[in-house]
Amino acid sequence: MAKPVQETLSHEEQRLLLELLFAQRYALELVCCELADIENGDKQVDAKRYQQLLRLYDRLLQET
Amino acid sequence: MAKPVQETLSHEEQRLLLELLFAQRYALELVCCELADIENGDKQVDAKRYQQLLRLYDRLLQET
Repeated sequence: MAKPVQETLSHEEQRLLLELLFAQRYALELVCCELADIENGDKQVDAKRYQQLLRLYDRLLQET
Repeated sequence: MAKPVQETLSHEEQRLLLELLFAQRYALELVCCELADIENGDKQVDAKRYQQLLRLYDRLLQET
């Protein structure tokens, strides 16, 4: 399988994308969509990833 | 000034966000919006950042 795109980006490119994500205030929405998909049963993830996503959601809610 | 949120995230959290960004196929749109804002004169950036964004845009176009 090909490497996921995000792993082929340089550190600078990754940083730039994260900057845009926060500048355009889209980070929380992104995590929200993913959690909705999981909770609706549209997407299967393991418990560890679900916990990571929940923590990230709380983190972003506090910070933004 | 407070630290930008993205700089307060752990490496794992940053990675998770980038993963979602690509999974939801939003990365290219994010860069596109930023370039449109700059080219319309709605946002001022220096030439270096503009070049970085253009390179990232080309990169993502090829990869996705």
